[in-house]
Amino acid sequence: MHKKAVILANGAFPTHEIPLQELKNSKHIVCCDGAINKLEKAKIEPYAIVGDLDSLDAELKLKYHDIVHHFANQDTNDLTKAIHWCKKNSFLDITIVGATGERDDHMIGNVFLLPRYAKIVKVKMLTSYGVFTPIIRSKNFESYTGQQVSIFSPNSDTLISTANLRYALTNQKLEQMWQGTLNESMGDSFRIEFEGDSLIIYQEY
Amino acid sequence: MHKKAVILANGAFPTHEIPLQELKNSKHIVCCDGAINKLEKAKIEPYAIVGDLDSLDAELKLKYHDIVHHFANQDTNDLTKAIHWCKKNSFLDITIVGATGERDDHMIGNVFLLPRYAKIVKVKMLTSYGVFTPIIRSKNFESYTGQQVSIFSPNSDTLISTANLRYALTNQKLEQMWQGTLNESMGDSFRIEFEGDSLIIYQEY
Repeated sequence: MHKKAVILANGAFPTHEIPLQELKNSKHIVCCDGAINKLEKAKIEPYAIVGDLDSLDAELKLKYHDIVHHFANQDTNDLTKAIHWCKKNSFLDITIVGATGERDDHMIGNVFLLPRYAKIVKVKMLTSYGVFTPIIRSKNFESYTGQQVSIFSPNSDTLISTANLRYALTNQKLEQMWQGTLNESMGDSFRIEFEGDSLIIYQEY
Repeated sequence: MHKKAVILANGAFPTHEIPLQELKNSKHIVCCDGAINKLEKAKIEPYAIVGDLDSLDAELKLKYHDIVHHFANQDTNDLTKAIHWCKKNSFLDITIVGATGERDDHMIGNVFLLPRYAKIVKVKMLTSYGVFTPIIRSKNFESYTGQQVSIFSPNSDTLISTANLRYALTNQKLEQMWQGTLNESMGDSFRIEFEGDSLIIYQEY
């Protein structure tokens, strides 16, 4: 069993019960520094605070000085810094919350960073509406009949096949990012097979 | 001058002042059928209602029977149907509102559909945080110093150069979707030049 952590990113603080419970029940919350004020307000204690510390005021810096981890690298965003901190500290099963719901470009950027993270940790992202799971190899997903499912293929050459989805793919490419959206599960599981680069699977709650 | 229309998509009803004013001030609101209840609730009259009419109840169907336009094509989503209706009716300058803020996969799908629309109409999408503009040729953008800007390149082979952005690109590819995010305008305009496929530019308000 890998050690689990929940990363709180600096988007909208979770309001949906599923990401909120995940956050509240976690013993290892790794907080991107821009999100620490929201976590304070919710009276939840972080296990670690990671970032460039730009957004941390002096009082919080003092309060949390023993769990604050400074990464000065300007070439990665806070979420990526948090993932690297987790990896370095042997947290290899990561749930990201709070990564959506504010700036749209951050949201898209964060979603399309997931395949990179999947190469070093097990990771998923919980939003107010569903869960994004990056996959680097073929995978079965637990589901339910009628669950809305979308497939995003960052590399348009990837050949994809599906089992138990309403609109089946058979060794097909998704040449446009919208082409794999609006699919639907036919039962309590479905399967995504592919050759090539990573995919991102979205399942509505 | 092209005739203008505002399309109300079936995501979250606008709350930010910019898309909301755009909607309220429009004489030609083209409403995706799933959004008609929200428009009714806001006491705003549509000019046209477009979709497969699945989500329209009998009362509204009767009330709006003379402006309801049925598209049965199951292969396109409601937003695409609304764009085609606009094109057919000579509305060639389109502002999309209400396309984000609910299901994350719809939001991503809608954003990456924009370059297709840009081939047939002038179009932009207003969200609660900023504006997405698809471009099919090099373009100058009005801006302000410090405006947050992100560039999305659906085709990773596209060669891009920028002028007056903090992190300049010079005939560079954006091989990953997150690589063009988190840029910033250096003044009251910036320029995006590119060879190849279309781009999507995001500017924070």
